[in-house]
Amino acid sequence: MSASFETWRVRFERLRANKIFELTVIAIIVLSALLIGARTYEEITRFQQWLRVLDVAVTVFFLMEILIRMAAERRLLDFFKKGWNVFDFLIVTASLIPMDDSEMVLLARLLRIFRVLRLVSMIPELRMLMAALFKSIPRMGYVALLMFIIFYIYAAIGSFLFHDVDERLWGNISLAMLTLFQVATFESWATAVLYPTMEHYPYAWIFFLTFIFLNAFIFLNMMIGIVLDVMQKESIQIELESGEGEAAELHGLRDDVRQLRDQLSRMEAMLERREK
Amino acid sequence: MSASFETWRVRFERLRANKIFELTVIAIIVLSALLIGARTYEEITRFQQWLRVLDVAVTVFFLMEILIRMAAERRLLDFFKKGWNVFDFLIVTASLIPMDDSEMVLLARLLRIFRVLRLVSMIPELRMLMAALFKSIPRMGYVALLMFIIFYIYAAIGSFLFHDVDERLWGNISLAMLTLFQVATFESWATAVLYPTMEHYPYAWIFFLTFIFLNAFIFLNMMIGIVLDVMQKESIQIELESGEGEAAELHGLRDDVRQLRDQLSRMEAMLERREK
Amino acid sequence: MSASFETWRVRFERLRANKIFELTVIAIIVLSALLIGARTYEEITRFQQWLRVLDVAVTVFFLMEILIRMAAERRLLDFFKKGWNVFDFLIVTASLIPMDDSEMVLLARLLRIFRVLRLVSMIPELRMLMAALFKSIPRMGYVALLMFIIFYIYAAIGSFLFHDVDERLWGNISLAMLTLFQVATFESWATAVLYPTMEHYPYAWIFFLTFIFLNAFIFLNMMIGIVLDVMQKESIQIELESGEGEAAELHGLRDDVRQLRDQLSRMEAMLERREK
Amino acid sequence: MSASFETWRVRFERLRANKIFELTVIAIIVLSALLIGARTYEEITRFQQWLRVLDVAVTVFFLMEILIRMAAERRLLDFFKKGWNVFDFLIVTASLIPMDDSEMVLLARLLRIFRVLRLVSMIPELRMLMAALFKSIPRMGYVALLMFIIFYIYAAIGSFLFHDVDERLWGNISLAMLTLFQVATFESWATAVLYPTMEHYPYAWIFFLTFIFLNAFIFLNMMIGIVLDVMQKESIQIELESGEGEAAELHGLRDDVRQLRDQLSRMEAMLERREK
Repeated sequence: MSASFETWRVRFERLRANKIFELTVIAIIVLSALLIGARTYEEITRFQQWLRVLDVAVTVFFLMEILIRMAAERRLLDFFKKGWNVFDFLIVTASLIPMDDSEMVLLARLLRIFRVLRLVSMIPELRMLMAALFKSIPRMGYVALLMFIIFYIYAAIGSFLFHDVDERLWGNISLAMLTLFQVATFESWATAVLYPTMEHYPYAWIFFLTFIFLNAFIFLNMMIGIVLDVMQKESIQIELESGEGEAAELHGLRDDVRQLRDQLSRMEAMLERREK
Repeated sequence: MSASFETWRVRFERLRANKIFELTVIAIIVLSALLIGARTYEEITRFQQWLRVLDVAVTVFFLMEILIRMAAERRLLDFFKKGWNVFDFLIVTASLIPMDDSEMVLLARLLRIFRVLRLVSMIPELRMLMAALFKSIPRMGYVALLMFIIFYIYAAIGSFLFHDVDERLWGNISLAMLTLFQVATFESWATAVLYPTMEHYPYAWIFFLTFIFLNAFIFLNMMIGIVLDVMQKESIQIELESGEGEAAELHGLRDDVRQLRDQLSRMEAMLERREK
Repeated sequence: MSASFETWRVRFERLRANKIFELTVIAIIVLSALLIGARTYEEITRFQQWLRVLDVAVTVFFLMEILIRMAAERRLLDFFKKGWNVFDFLIVTASLIPMDDSEMVLLARLLRIFRVLRLVSMIPELRMLMAALFKSIPRMGYVALLMFIIFYIYAAIGSFLFHDVDERLWGNISLAMLTLFQVATFESWATAVLYPTMEHYPYAWIFFLTFIFLNAFIFLNMMIGIVLDVMQKESIQIELESGEGEAAELHGLRDDVRQLRDQLSRMEAMLERREK
Repeated sequence: MSASFETWRVRFERLRANKIFELTVIAIIVLSALLIGARTYEEITRFQQWLRVLDVAVTVFFLMEILIRMAAERRLLDFFKKGWNVFDFLIVTASLIPMDDSEMVLLARLLRIFRVLRLVSMIPELRMLMAALFKSIPRMGYVALLMFIIFYIYAAIGSFLFHDVDERLWGNISLAMLTLFQVATFESWATAVLYPTMEHYPYAWIFFLTFIFLNAFIFLNMMIGIVLDVMQKESIQIELESGEGEAAELHGLRDDVRQLRDQLSRMEAMLERREK
């Protein structure tokens, strides 16, 4: 029976590695995404029955697919060692929980939307892109913290000074931070935020211009920092690949020349001995 | 007769390579572009008759020009081997199809507009720019796909949650994606999209801020990826041009030194033989 | 007694270097920031009494912390040699000045906001970011001056020409510069500034388009300049680290070869002498 | 008398190179800029008389300054060989032409504004920045041409299709190009341009989205192209400075080794001769 289990495992492994199987999974993910999109159209409600059937079919297919991928693994634990497998498992199992309560329907729908993210876990190029994105998070983190501090200080000043100008924009520190984010994206910052404020505080432009310049300045420097960072990694790479090879060659050459000198010294000694 | 055909071919080839001929073609393309522009002015309608004559003249000139370039080729097939020639051929022949039907006039006009693109095929620098653009398409493709997935997920969530706030902005997934694209370009995203939504859902800012940050984050990383990509290609180039030359020189030097050692060993052997 | 003073100093030094002490200080700074934020909410006014007590506690803690850091120093002057220490000292002492006057309360509040900046002085990564920002100021300075000149010229022209179109936008050179800054951020530049102006001066688009192109052009070139600058510094770095090492190796090799030649010359001389 | 002329020339030359003289000129340029700015304020009109006197004084000072700089030159022609001198000469002489006609006053004022640009010619760092800007014009030129072609084609299509939607936005090809420029800067492109158009042509979003993507795509690629360009120039620079030095060293080393071989061959021949 263990042999039969093994042959089944090998069959599943072969199926998992099959290109057509992969493309089918991708096609079903796209279909599931289209189903979600279709539900947002009013006109589609009369096909409600069909949508529900298709939805169940997609859920069953995803369940089977993940079971096949689990069965293809030599040990079940290996399956959960890859982050993307855990991600797929969570997405699939979450949509299995029955939610008939009308309140829960919204949550069920939202969970179904995240199925689209399975595309990322299926396409290697997207997986690589995501890995690159995750790697850059710490580098961005401290810049984000610095920006947050600046936003917080300006928001505090803003809500102290402009509290009375517009309650909706500067009412408290949260609203002020949202307003400053709007200013940072340049959206109606002059017509809707700066000019109404300047009617009461003619020098308000100092507040807004220093804020915009500080933001632009930090953003620019962050870009420079990233380019520098990338270049340093690059130059180390180049050294490792070609540079060190050259250095090694040079080192070897120097050893050769030193051996030459020793040989010559021996010969000179011989000649001198004969001279006497 | 074959000889006479050959002399004609050579004449056409010389004409095609002629700088003045090229400049004339460019001038006619610019004239054709101006004709298209002129038609958009109301005041110009009384010169309608003249415009039609000029248009026919331009069409005939383009036909003659492409025939000359075809006749200059040793074999007709060679002409269609270059992508830009096929492009020119399609543009020119498309405007030959008679379209008198009032419905078709619009299509004929649109086809005539694309004649302006012939400028790109005539000016080598623009051709190089376009080639560089085409080369970067695959690199951009997967980032575009990733962005599309993010837009799709946010649009689905947005049309589920904010469906009742504004039917025109969040009515279905297509409208929601268009709205999100507007948000991504920062156009009235706060005043026209965020604030009306926050009146019903006070926590809507989480939806919009995560969307904007995700977009900015992916966009920034894509820029870094491109710079990295360009640099890697550069460093390989540098290696091929100058680096390898140096490595080769170093290698040759090492061979020289080894020959020296062999020579010395021979000499030492001689000296030793004599010592005995 | 001097020995007892020294043991106290060492204890303070150990306390200052303590990781838990550092984290406590950061926590108190964050608490102080939250206190400032809380005061901007209307609903919080009934906890006014508690806020005041907490505020005094934070002030006392900061005072004690800075005294500990001063006492940990071998000489008091060493404390003020680090820029960040001076910064912390000013922030802390400024909030000690009693300000009961209702007019002064605003200033006291503003001073308290700047306490948040102490986060920057406490977290080494942020300190490094700030140092990098300060280093890039001179590089940016001349570009800013050039941009200011362009803004000034366009503002002067704008307020001469469009004075009568909209007094609030082009009334004097300061207003015109603010309007141009709004145009440079693309905020409502066409709908609110260009189109109303074009109703009186149909060729006003020349003014705005050249301004936008000039700005974009200088900004782009500044970016290029910065990338170039960063790269030059990088290449010097690479030379210093790996390149010069190679050059030195090469130089040493050449010396070795010259010594070889001298040795050979001596040997040749010996052989020639014997020949005679 | 020629000797006296020469001593005067040397005196002028010394004056021109004087740091205090330079700073005075810069101060007068800034004063002249402030005068222009002051005239834009309504309240300043009662100092009209004083402004006119100051204006004449500035004009006379500039005239004297340029005469000194001309007199300091060994030959007058040398003065006009530098582009910045010609620029200064034109600015100064243009403001000498008497313009009392009320119509001409505007032109006189505009000419006076350009005096501010003399700051650029006086400060070496700004002169270098401007030189760098001029160098990048050809590189940008062809990209600008490609962008213009795309704008022209879209403007032609736009004014054919959307002519009836909004006469002011799509009335003719010039208006359509201005509208598209507004779209390219993302200013109210959705709320003021896209949505009104989509009410008549539901598929108008295809037109706008392809336009925005094409623009962003070309802009991004241009940035990459510039970075690549800068890097190529950099790598050539590095080669010239340090790389070739290394290559030369390597070449010299190889010559040394070859000389060694020749010497050894001679010695070997000697030894062999003796053996016989």
